[in-house]
Amino acid sequence: MGAMKLPLSGQKIGFAGLGNMGAPMARHLHNAGAEVTVWNRSDGPALIAEKAGLNRVQSLRELSSTVGNGIICINLTHTTVVEEVVFGKSGLFSEKPAAGTLIIDFGTTGVSGTKRFAAQMKEWDSGWVDAPVSGGQVGAEAANLTIMVGGAQADVARAMPVIEVLGEKITHMGESGSGQVTKLANQLIVAQTIDAVAQALRLAELAGVDSAKVREALRGGFAESRILDLHGERMVMRNFEPGGRSTYQLKDVRMICELAAEVGLESPTLQNSLHQWVKFVEAEGHGELDHSGLLRLYES
Amino acid sequence: MGAMKLPLSGQKIGFAGLGNMGAPMARHLHNAGAEVTVWNRSDGPALIAEKAGLNRVQSLRELSSTVGNGIICINLTHTTVVEEVVFGKSGLFSEKPAAGTLIIDFGTTGVSGTKRFAAQMKEWDSGWVDAPVSGGQVGAEAANLTIMVGGAQADVARAMPVIEVLGEKITHMGESGSGQVTKLANQLIVAQTIDAVAQALRLAELAGVDSAKVREALRGGFAESRILDLHGERMVMRNFEPGGRSTYQLKDVRMICELAAEVGLESPTLQNSLHQWVKFVEAEGHGELDHSGLLRLYES
Repeated sequence: MGAMKLPLSGQKIGFAGLGNMGAPMARHLHNAGAEVTVWNRSDGPALIAEKAGLNRVQSLRELSSTVGNGIICINLTHTTVVEEVVFGKSGLFSEKPAAGTLIIDFGTTGVSGTKRFAAQMKEWDSGWVDAPVSGGQVGAEAANLTIMVGGAQADVARAMPVIEVLGEKITHMGESGSGQVTKLANQLIVAQTIDAVAQALRLAELAGVDSAKVREALRGGFAESRILDLHGERMVMRNFEPGGRSTYQLKDVRMICELAAEVGLESPTLQNSLHQWVKFVEAEGHGELDHSGLLRLYES
Repeated sequence: MGAMKLPLSGQKIGFAGLGNMGAPMARHLHNAGAEVTVWNRSDGPALIAEKAGLNRVQSLRELSSTVGNGIICINLTHTTVVEEVVFGKSGLFSEKPAAGTLIIDFGTTGVSGTKRFAAQMKEWDSGWVDAPVSGGQVGAEAANLTIMVGGAQADVARAMPVIEVLGEKITHMGESGSGQVTKLANQLIVAQTIDAVAQALRLAELAGVDSAKVREALRGGFAESRILDLHGERMVMRNFEPGGRSTYQLKDVRMICELAAEVGLESPTLQNSLHQWVKFVEAEGHGELDHSGLLRLYES
């Protein structure tokens, strides 16, 4: 059998953040031929990665020195964590990185933060590409994520072979931050459509009509959506195991509101949406449920 | 060429209400072999129908006497108009109808009204089937509407050959009113998804990212919907010619709120949705725009 050259053969890549999404993504890069070095705050996921043949380090400083001026992927859950992991005292670049280092941020990170981080990297003759993903853990496992990319043309060109290993639909939206803007637009629609489907099914139940039958009758019409399909089915089956945790949905809605305030979008609907998710996650303590669990807000 | 028996061959059918939807629907029944007699409040649409070979009458009383104990279809825009047209002094049944008369209501009519009308017809040994449709004028022209049917089994069985001429996806939801409940669930999702897509595209524009590109990037992901597809395209192209008039969307949202109040669904999101559509249609006077025009609310 002839040896097939893998797309990332021999390329040194770092990966920080092995959550539900990051872990399978790092593994895919490894399977694509890269020499992947991983770091994670807690040991468990890093040990699993090590057993799968990935290289493991104990500190972020070690991660950046191993990768040199290569590519480091991050997949973290908050803008503040991103800042700490990349620029903090014990972060990747507590010392100035080697010129030509490139960060690819697969997480959902604030737009203004992203612009700031990209500007700092540019000052260091290095790069930052925002590449937030949609498609959930299922998409990460199957390597068919939708990926919305922002960054300078040359940085994006360099990041693309890595991104292409993980995604199926990849769009370069524009300059730094535009990938994150697009992801937030996505999350706004997701958050509000889940709310709409939850109300519609609950309204039907209260009016004495079987919600499973309503969902079926609506499929394919003007009310059709991926949410009615997937999350609607979860609601009908009352399967609220995540999937997409409500606590992350709330985090994203907060970021959407921040962006809206920054750019001057006045939206009572968005304020209401934030209120609903806060109530569900904080007042009712349902943060660990799948976001389709919002249905419960209309049952209480 | 052998004569093919048409599905409604020789059947006497009445049709009241030749709006954008009703006019093509009446024509389809005629083309399916029925002897269709039409009535419309204004002359124009009735004259057009007459030219196409349908029978035209000047009064509702004439319509019901022509059809006898057959089927009369109605497609009207308000519950109060339905009540007036069917039960009013100059209505179809100012006198008690012949036993065995059947009304098929293709319009979006209130749930409690529908139950009341069905009970009255039953008292008269006659029937009422609620069969509201989704799919818009395009679907009415193409006879591929989604139709949500409520009513007693025997009435629905009798109505079905007529309904099948007009629709592609037809679901019998349950007793009288359950078709209307399902339609309102549909309209709730439509109203709120349009709002979500409008905000998402506007947020992106304000953040400097091209909304057409955002819509493209989101297609097929978790934010995918018929609304993102069809109404999203209208928003991007700024094509707000109706289609679905905003004034009808507002009417439906009001009916959803009425039903929610009747069955005890508390929903701040629904209250907010009503507020947004009222503002758009009444305060800003945009009722004649397509409902995708709600985008303008976020541009003002």
